[in-house]
Amino acid sequence: MRIDSLLSVLDRNQIDYQFSGDKSVEINRVAGLDNASQDSLSFLNSNKFIDSLNQTLAGVVVLRSEFQAQCPTNSISVHDPYFVYSLLAQVVYPDAAPFSGVAESASVALTADLEEQVCIEDQVVVKENVSIGCQTWVQSGAVIHRNVKIGAHCKIGSNVVIHENCIIGDHTRIESGAIIGGDGFGWAPNRGQWSKIPQVGRVVIGNHVSIGNNSCVDRGAIEDTVIEDHCIIDNLVHIAHNVVIGEGSAIAGQAGFAGTTKIGKHNIVAGQAGFAGHLSTADNCHFAAKSGVTQTVKNSGAYSGFPVQETAKWQKQIVRQRNLDKMAMQIKELQKQLKELQNNN
Amino acid sequence: MRIDSLLSVLDRNQIDYQFSGDKSVEINRVAGLDNASQDSLSFLNSNKFIDSLNQTLAGVVVLRSEFQAQCPTNSISVHDPYFVYSLLAQVVYPDAAPFSGVAESASVALTADLEEQVCIEDQVVVKENVSIGCQTWVQSGAVIHRNVKIGAHCKIGSNVVIHENCIIGDHTRIESGAIIGGDGFGWAPNRGQWSKIPQVGRVVIGNHVSIGNNSCVDRGAIEDTVIEDHCIIDNLVHIAHNVVIGEGSAIAGQAGFAGTTKIGKHNIVAGQAGFAGHLSTADNCHFAAKSGVTQTVKNSGAYSGFPVQETAKWQKQIVRQRNLDKMAMQIKELQKQLKELQNNN
Amino acid sequence: MRIDSLLSVLDRNQIDYQFSGDKSVEINRVAGLDNASQDSLSFLNSNKFIDSLNQTLAGVVVLRSEFQAQCPTNSISVHDPYFVYSLLAQVVYPDAAPFSGVAESASVALTADLEEQVCIEDQVVVKENVSIGCQTWVQSGAVIHRNVKIGAHCKIGSNVVIHENCIIGDHTRIESGAIIGGDGFGWAPNRGQWSKIPQVGRVVIGNHVSIGNNSCVDRGAIEDTVIEDHCIIDNLVHIAHNVVIGEGSAIAGQAGFAGTTKIGKHNIVAGQAGFAGHLSTADNCHFAAKSGVTQTVKNSGAYSGFPVQETAKWQKQIVRQRNLDKMAMQIKELQKQLKELQNNN
Repeated sequence: MRIDSLLSVLDRNQIDYQFSGDKSVEINRVAGLDNASQDSLSFLNSNKFIDSLNQTLAGVVVLRSEFQAQCPTNSISVHDPYFVYSLLAQVVYPDAAPFSGVAESASVALTADLEEQVCIEDQVVVKENVSIGCQTWVQSGAVIHRNVKIGAHCKIGSNVVIHENCIIGDHTRIESGAIIGGDGFGWAPNRGQWSKIPQVGRVVIGNHVSIGNNSCVDRGAIEDTVIEDHCIIDNLVHIAHNVVIGEGSAIAGQAGFAGTTKIGKHNIVAGQAGFAGHLSTADNCHFAAKSGVTQTVKNSGAYSGFPVQETAKWQKQIVRQRNLDKMAMQIKELQKQLKELQNNN
Repeated sequence: MRIDSLLSVLDRNQIDYQFSGDKSVEINRVAGLDNASQDSLSFLNSNKFIDSLNQTLAGVVVLRSEFQAQCPTNSISVHDPYFVYSLLAQVVYPDAAPFSGVAESASVALTADLEEQVCIEDQVVVKENVSIGCQTWVQSGAVIHRNVKIGAHCKIGSNVVIHENCIIGDHTRIESGAIIGGDGFGWAPNRGQWSKIPQVGRVVIGNHVSIGNNSCVDRGAIEDTVIEDHCIIDNLVHIAHNVVIGEGSAIAGQAGFAGTTKIGKHNIVAGQAGFAGHLSTADNCHFAAKSGVTQTVKNSGAYSGFPVQETAKWQKQIVRQRNLDKMAMQIKELQKQLKELQNNN
Repeated sequence: MRIDSLLSVLDRNQIDYQFSGDKSVEINRVAGLDNASQDSLSFLNSNKFIDSLNQTLAGVVVLRSEFQAQCPTNSISVHDPYFVYSLLAQVVYPDAAPFSGVAESASVALTADLEEQVCIEDQVVVKENVSIGCQTWVQSGAVIHRNVKIGAHCKIGSNVVIHENCIIGDHTRIESGAIIGGDGFGWAPNRGQWSKIPQVGRVVIGNHVSIGNNSCVDRGAIEDTVIEDHCIIDNLVHIAHNVVIGEGSAIAGQAGFAGTTKIGKHNIVAGQAGFAGHLSTADNCHFAAKSGVTQTVKNSGAYSGFPVQETAKWQKQIVRQRNLDKMAMQIKELQKQLKELQNNN
């Protein structure tokens, strides 16, 4: 596609830009500045890579206006190059299904309701009363249980499982191997044995959500587990029953959330962080990698450690802990000098 | 179903109860006290929710006798409302397969032995010499490798894999995406390379066990990996080769167990806890979230931290660590005052 | 097979050994010294098990020469019994596919290129332009997306997913449920929402690699994610986009690597360890269980804790932390005695 087609995407999205160069150049791929060729879209997001910019062979570079003078090729100057790059790369690599219709080896119930241009790949199972919105793409091996509703323009990865009654909005991606609506960990103890609490709530996932590969979002025990709009969730994340993840939150790999915990809007949770059950967090919290949240967090801010504290305090504590040897020796020295003083008196 | 049918379940299970109200009311679902309607079973497990009890519209509430007077509707008074709720909810939501027989798209070896009322859903693979007990339900996409034995009344979730020779008892659930009997991590180092140790043991899982979504239980290297009766295991748990999990233990999400470790009976392991290999734990241990067990634990009790210590000690240490700044200043002040004293002498 | 066939394997691998006993004995299985019978291969790797050696009924034992005199049965004396055992056990349990060809229920694209003796089991999906090398075994339920290249002598486990364009070398194993080439976690923030960065790099996996059950290796954002030759990776490991794992490294269960991190050659990473993004480690590093690496590690060595420090320092710090109570009391005592001195002066 020609650069002018890319620019028309920016026009449609009402994004301010300045173009410099030849709009007729053909762009077919994306590449880093160093590996780009004449047909590549590239971007500069940090002045660390100015040398790469000077030598790039890219067809067009998205950058901030202050770097335009140093760009040896066509450039698109914008306020936020990384965001604009994402929009343009989505056009260069449209996430479109390979065909419309149902592969012969798929098993689709007669009562399933597939809208226009749905793609059901090989060996997929779609059970009774499932509805799937237009242009949604279900990859090979996925299993969609009865009464599930999936919106339009979704991508359901290979070997994903979505259990009965769950609801998924529009423009949402469930990456391969993820399990949505599996049974939560609800058991009543009874004299050394465990009696199962039937898990009859649903998982309700909003629009523009992404759930990572092999992640698990358990169905609610009675009420629903909820992932609000615009949440992004990485791989191997565990979300227990009745958790609510607030709008726009981002959850990194291997984080885990115990039951009935409610994460505020626009939280950022780094890798391997863990949340105990039955607590809540304020909006706009940031939890560091490996942090452990054991109580409700009432105020926005950055938190670290286990149990979490404010990140600034935690960093200070880490330094103190590393100086414990020195502190122990200072105490010993004080004891010695005090003894001397006592003896002299 | 009418309330008197529910009460007959309690009779059959020899559970003491007192009923108050109208046994002819029809119950079709479960609900929390706040969202219940005339056809709902609900329960009260904590006096925190007394206000909800007062206003509930539920058809019947399971509660302790001291709260019966405050219940505006039919009630079942019992010693342990949560356990009794679990039994009754299992009746309202029977976990029954949708049909008996083998779906047309499933691939079942001629030598497989399926007992009565087995349900094999779409796209399932059942290989040579597998045996599956009566009323066991194998959901779409599961793969059962050769010589596996699965007991009666089990539920094998979608896209589960059970590798060759493994044994699964009765009334056991393997949730979706779990891998049972995958190869363990056994390698002999040889000049910077790794030579594979064939993993020829089995996984042997008892009765009334539950393994969570996308969890992995590796087969033994030579002897077996064993999950004893009545264990419940949550999502994304890693159980390495030759581990033994003692009867009645409960393991929460994302916990991990390295090879040949032996967990005692009735252990409770919280989320993201980790166990080094070749150690054992006593019966009735409780390990807190994110704890790390690096040595054998000989005594029952509660343990926390990494490496674990008794929870009471760990809690004290956490407080001390947060006061390190204060301790450092106390030392500084001591040094100053001592210096003054020394100068005065 | 007779012991002399096993010995010829050692000859072919140019391994020095001394045999003592009767080479005509038939070996059909492996067993621990305690459970071995006349047809078992066993090994002794530690003098802890000398008593078991004395009483073993094994057909042949691999051991170091100093223990040969105490072995009551046939023995093979070698320098490294565990490595030699691995080689011989591989012969006793050849990892061979059950058949050559394509199962009837598999869905294989016409443009897929399968070399000789490839085994494609039931319900497998192989898409357009995939190539699979000779004697590679693809187990039931695996999904191989378009343009993937898999080498010879590989084993692709059940319900594995390999996404488009990824490359896998020879003699490599992808264990069941692993997701190779899923989309990485690349998003550009935009006013409280997230705009997807198309993930268009590949995963490139070398020869003699093993990826564990339900692990995830994300495709690169633009360039590739790379797992070099002879790496072994355990279950439920998360490897984000553009990570490089250096040759010969071993990664234990539930470890996680954030994006663009580069692990050196021959690193050993223990369970539940975590690595932040955009850092690198030296060759021959060892990271302890639950350690957290937040910065580049320039020197080989053993590291522990979060954030990591040299293991020896970390161990000392742990002891100090446990003595904080004592230190606090020492400070209190110093304050008291100092006060007394001050009052006396």
